[in-house]
Amino acid sequence: MDYDLFEPGDIQLQNGATLRDAKLAYKTYGELNADKSNAIVYPTWYSGQHYDNEWLIGEGMALDPSRYFIVIPNMFGNGLSSSPSNTPPPHDGPRFPNVTMYDNVRVQHRLITERFGIERLELVTGWSMGAGQTYQWALSYPETVRRILPFCGSAKTSIHNIVFLEGVKAALTADAGWNNGWYREQPGVGLRAMARVYAGWGFCQQFYREKIYEREPLGYGSLEDFLVGFWEGLFVKRDANNLLAMLWTWQNADIGKTPGFGGVEEALAAIRAPAIVMPAQQDLYFPPEDNEWEVAHMANAELRTIPGSWGHFAGGGLNPVDTKFIDNALKELLARGV
Amino acid sequence: MDYDLFEPGDIQLQNGATLRDAKLAYKTYGELNADKSNAIVYPTWYSGQHYDNEWLIGEGMALDPSRYFIVIPNMFGNGLSSSPSNTPPPHDGPRFPNVTMYDNVRVQHRLITERFGIERLELVTGWSMGAGQTYQWALSYPETVRRILPFCGSAKTSIHNIVFLEGVKAALTADAGWNNGWYREQPGVGLRAMARVYAGWGFCQQFYREKIYEREPLGYGSLEDFLVGFWEGLFVKRDANNLLAMLWTWQNADIGKTPGFGGVEEALAAIRAPAIVMPAQQDLYFPPEDNEWEVAHMANAELRTIPGSWGHFAGGGLNPVDTKFIDNALKELLARGV
Repeated sequence: MDYDLFEPGDIQLQNGATLRDAKLAYKTYGELNADKSNAIVYPTWYSGQHYDNEWLIGEGMALDPSRYFIVIPNMFGNGLSSSPSNTPPPHDGPRFPNVTMYDNVRVQHRLITERFGIERLELVTGWSMGAGQTYQWALSYPETVRRILPFCGSAKTSIHNIVFLEGVKAALTADAGWNNGWYREQPGVGLRAMARVYAGWGFCQQFYREKIYEREPLGYGSLEDFLVGFWEGLFVKRDANNLLAMLWTWQNADIGKTPGFGGVEEALAAIRAPAIVMPAQQDLYFPPEDNEWEVAHMANAELRTIPGSWGHFAGGGLNPVDTKFIDNALKELLARGV
Repeated sequence: MDYDLFEPGDIQLQNGATLRDAKLAYKTYGELNADKSNAIVYPTWYSGQHYDNEWLIGEGMALDPSRYFIVIPNMFGNGLSSSPSNTPPPHDGPRFPNVTMYDNVRVQHRLITERFGIERLELVTGWSMGAGQTYQWALSYPETVRRILPFCGSAKTSIHNIVFLEGVKAALTADAGWNNGWYREQPGVGLRAMARVYAGWGFCQQFYREKIYEREPLGYGSLEDFLVGFWEGLFVKRDANNLLAMLWTWQNADIGKTPGFGGVEEALAAIRAPAIVMPAQQDLYFPPEDNEWEVAHMANAELRTIPGSWGHFAGGGLNPVDTKFIDNALKELLARGV
């Protein structure tokens, strides 16, 4: 096991249930300095685990472990932190409780304060659902978070995004092997169907028009090779109930439901940390228009769009040009005095 | 039965199989005049039947039955023309042969020439896959077709569109009840899953952002009401093998494969009929960019985009504003001397 567990006990969840004997899996990179002033939190995305975030960390990059202490907390439901697949009965499988972004971030905050004694974070950043957690951090812990850079995500899941996820869910659960979550083997047909549904959304029209999947660094031999090798490969290694648990978290993401706030506008207005909000051009489920609306409601935020043809996966660490774009913005934001 | 059948016998198909005892269901509106100079062909779309095309026909509209003789041929696979669901063994169900756009249009041409003795068409027009058949008409029968107005469709199905359809297909066929097409009852779970996948594609981000589904003329009570009432309602009344047959036709649509042509560029360049090519703004699977590319390769074509927030379904006859926009363009095109 190359990661650690934080075990805060039972967690009262926002929606009324209890996450018993919660386990937050995390990994750290670099060293926390003496005055604990060099910490960064970088949450994970839908189906991703901390391994899948590491492309943005490295010597000479903004998230440089020789300079910063970077904490990647694994989202609940992702198979490493408490999830349907690793929770003992009776809360296992489809009985795993509904966990919100707010719940995730609350436990992450306990991790950094109780385990590490950190009171300030230089930065919170993340891709996709990781971006959603980033907004939540800035809202829930304004005294802690100095800067945020959410990329390819949103503060509240849009209706169209909810519909996209309905399609993903319907494809996965159309497999009778799913059996309402009481499967003995993974519902492989459903996982592969879900992957094929996702394929049209994760990358945009222009990505396919240019056959970028056939070029380096992807280099698949054909469209079918890409659908199987990349997309089915992404989901068949995951647990169906875990994917559905995270999907619930995603569909129900809304910082406006944070206790004390009366909706997303009010919540956005309460975010004071300097922010670069970074959508990707042609992202089909987190379109730049939604972030533009957000930024107009935020006090100290700039919209900066990743240009190009990769759509949502511009933020996935696969395209060096996009990675450079994100890294440059992170460097710039970290250099700002706040 | 409110429609007629044209029965041209056995049809040798482009892909090598034979459609035996073919039946082309069609309906006509208005009267063919004495010199047979007032005919219009208006093919159907994916899952649609001639009933579903009638919104664009009416007194005072461009497609005015008091003036024109309008023929709506039903696409093969749509349940009225020869389809998996109505073909006798051994060519029934999943053994129904693969039919191309080219095949469809060839039989439609026999209908109008052999049954009606029509040598010229004032116009061919259609939505979505109906647009695909429209391009094919102009290419296959340049001496017959005087004008075309394909809306929300393409001459060759784009790779991204193929991927979108892979998701639709995967969701439908993930239902074990589908049984490789040898079902005794419709695979209802799969049909509903397919509908939910489709929901995010058929209308665009802005449509959902504005909750247009809650307003007149749609007037659904909630998102879920719309997903069930509109989307599931659209597909649960159809036959799964029929939907898969038409999906094959769609995925493989390419006028560049017409005998005698060496690809889509060459085929587009051969279309000489005056054309208004009409995408819809924010159409997610027939994006305007693809039509822009087409028009640049066509001799006598204008790109005219339907503005607004309805995406692909701008061409579906549900929104009076969009219908007016299409109707106006049809009137203008029909008034042009050619």
